[in-house]
Amino acid sequence: MRITAADTFDIRFPTPKELAGSDALHTDPNYSAAYVVLRTDSPDGLDGHGLAFTIGRGTEVVVAAIEALSHLVVDRDAEELFADTRALSRRLTCDTQLRWIGPEKGVIHLATAAIVNAVWDLWAKSVGLPVWELLSSMSPQQLVDLVDFTYITDALTPEDALRLLEAQVAGRPARRDRVLSDGIPAYVTSVGWLGYPDDKVVRLCEEALAEGWTGLKMKVGNDIEADVRRAALIRSVAGPDAHLMMDANQRWDVDEAIAIVGRLAPSDPYWIEEPTSPDDVLGHARIARAVAPVRVATGEHAHNRVMFKQLMQAGAIGFCQVDACRLAGVNEVVAVLLLAAKFGVPVCPHAGGVGLCEYVQHLGAFDLVAVSGSSEDRVVEWADHLHEHFVHPASAKAGRYVAPTAPGYSVEMHPSSRAEFAFPDGPYWRAR
Amino acid sequence: MRITAADTFDIRFPTPKELAGSDALHTDPNYSAAYVVLRTDSPDGLDGHGLAFTIGRGTEVVVAAIEALSHLVVDRDAEELFADTRALSRRLTCDTQLRWIGPEKGVIHLATAAIVNAVWDLWAKSVGLPVWELLSSMSPQQLVDLVDFTYITDALTPEDALRLLEAQVAGRPARRDRVLSDGIPAYVTSVGWLGYPDDKVVRLCEEALAEGWTGLKMKVGNDIEADVRRAALIRSVAGPDAHLMMDANQRWDVDEAIAIVGRLAPSDPYWIEEPTSPDDVLGHARIARAVAPVRVATGEHAHNRVMFKQLMQAGAIGFCQVDACRLAGVNEVVAVLLLAAKFGVPVCPHAGGVGLCEYVQHLGAFDLVAVSGSSEDRVVEWADHLHEHFVHPASAKAGRYVAPTAPGYSVEMHPSSRAEFAFPDGPYWRAR
Repeated sequence: MRITAADTFDIRFPTPKELAGSDALHTDPNYSAAYVVLRTDSPDGLDGHGLAFTIGRGTEVVVAAIEALSHLVVDRDAEELFADTRALSRRLTCDTQLRWIGPEKGVIHLATAAIVNAVWDLWAKSVGLPVWELLSSMSPQQLVDLVDFTYITDALTPEDALRLLEAQVAGRPARRDRVLSDGIPAYVTSVGWLGYPDDKVVRLCEEALAEGWTGLKMKVGNDIEADVRRAALIRSVAGPDAHLMMDANQRWDVDEAIAIVGRLAPSDPYWIEEPTSPDDVLGHARIARAVAPVRVATGEHAHNRVMFKQLMQAGAIGFCQVDACRLAGVNEVVAVLLLAAKFGVPVCPHAGGVGLCEYVQHLGAFDLVAVSGSSEDRVVEWADHLHEHFVHPASAKAGRYVAPTAPGYSVEMHPSSRAEFAFPDGPYWRAR
Repeated sequence: MRITAADTFDIRFPTPKELAGSDALHTDPNYSAAYVVLRTDSPDGLDGHGLAFTIGRGTEVVVAAIEALSHLVVDRDAEELFADTRALSRRLTCDTQLRWIGPEKGVIHLATAAIVNAVWDLWAKSVGLPVWELLSSMSPQQLVDLVDFTYITDALTPEDALRLLEAQVAGRPARRDRVLSDGIPAYVTSVGWLGYPDDKVVRLCEEALAEGWTGLKMKVGNDIEADVRRAALIRSVAGPDAHLMMDANQRWDVDEAIAIVGRLAPSDPYWIEEPTSPDDVLGHARIARAVAPVRVATGEHAHNRVMFKQLMQAGAIGFCQVDACRLAGVNEVVAVLLLAAKFGVPVCPHAGGVGLCEYVQHLGAFDLVAVSGSSEDRVVEWADHLHEHFVHPASAKAGRYVAPTAPGYSVEMHPSSRAEFAFPDGPYWRAR
């Protein structure tokens, strides 16, 4: 099977009128995807779909980067790519000219994620498994061979990784059965967007609790007095046992974060998320020491395994919010799951947006089955937006993800959605 | 004066056949520029030129990002932009949708640099001063007002910055005179590229010494035995008093770097540059402690002020190699110069490539005159490539930059060069 073409798409969904999706720094998102389809000469019409999540303007820049990288996979034998996805990842991240405009960060890394994930989608479809099952069926050595250990050997060696994975082999079947029967532990983000009025927050909170959610996330970071009031409001509705996550979306400087988290502490945050610049390892570490026992969470903007390595070495995070397409796709995610296992940091993947829930359900399930082997303190983010555009949408029931069973990586969009919301020429945007 | 348009260009110069420019990770560069001209309605035909340096493939991605950002400056009143370039910088780095594909890193940040620097070029031309003289003529408060302190107040407050700048005011005139008469201290990089055979290295080294250079840089990182041999060779030619810089271009993991620098130490490196991932603050700090008294230098890939803040907080660098277009242009460079002054780290700006020498001579001169006030341990990189394409090329004499005197930021290219090397449609590339 050869990869014959990489078709790219700029797909943008309009900002919900109700300001779902608004946070302290991203006040007017149009949830979007720089989307790629790897076409093949397979007689079955197999193709691989990948996307990088974006929030509107700039999606075309990520698409341009996918096009700059795609010659590295087009015209290749697909089975050869599947046989060594570490080499594939390195070919993409180490292109001798393209790496200059990263390296391994920002636009070029988002584009790399879309392509690597499309290869994984194709691979998983070709063997008839969802990605999490494909990963969970690999031997420890095969999993180690997925990982590019460059720049992380001072924290995690291939031998460390092998030992960690081998320790979880015996328990895999039982945990796999539990994922299939009970789903994947999750929490819900859609209750406390900044744009929502209090009465809507209360109503959404009550509905979420009635649906079985035990972890709820609110946004903070614009107005401290409003944040303190809303936090107390949600805590009063949710009761003392619910987990209340608070997300500041990079809004504060270090000392400011420490002071404000102190004000929010009476509402018993389960974590404080993105308190400051995602690049500030030392800042996160200082905040973590100052606000304990409240734990710090970050990751949706941690741009590669080197950043996660440092966040863990510095004791800066209590939760690792790995993202499926900020990192360079499945292979780099596996590196970070292994780092997290080594440092004992629970992984709570970042989702929401469009397509992220579809992606990260696989990461949560794989981590539980084969890497950490634990569900303690591990919850996958859920937001109930835009799933209708996917052929195999993620779904949640009673506060958990239903384990995906369709072959692939779940981000294949309906052709009708891709056409309708193509930017700027799809019918939706042309009409505006 | 209004900015009427932003014209963009993808300009690529062919790889020198002699492998000038090759390093351990970037083995086949085509020195390139994502280039922007801000046109105005000025009756004098004033325009502002800015560029982001790239090395070939991917330049079109940075151009796409410049185009995505340019609506934020086009149709604006130029004098209003000059009056508050901090606000301009924040408008570019904090666009609520575009920041997602950074934030403040990689492609979108390179594009921001090109635009911000083009505004500075326009401003400096409009007042008839080279950028370093424009900066050096500002009051301490005006300089503080250039800086976006977001995410760095835990290390440097506006009050700190003001105090540092005020302490250098009295000495400015004498230092300015010295810069104009004696030039800017520098070192030369063109002697030890990895692609050069030993006899060529020896010849170039002898020529450089004869020209008056007292600091020479070699590339290391591919083959340790070859590195050790070449280092000893260059040291034997240069003598014990010359500064011998060694540049590993991110080639090593942390423990590997520590071991190899130990092997190179007998050749007395003035610094070891980019020993590992540019994102690895903690790794650089460990290397710095282990290889002392050899000092660690980095910065050409340090993507924003938050990274430099941490490198300094952690004691990870002995030299700060600020880049004029990896950071988001003049304003963020000023932030980093102030951080360096606060932490007592000498600034040795990164250059070479195409246009970087033209840019950084202004940064070196301004730092000397108004920020650090010192030339001790401060040398600006020089490489003798591609200057012929610029209207006001940088030049060096007797081991120092000649201070630029033409108004502007010096990166305006001859229209004929822009046309000849336009990619892919310029005559040079069309013929290939």
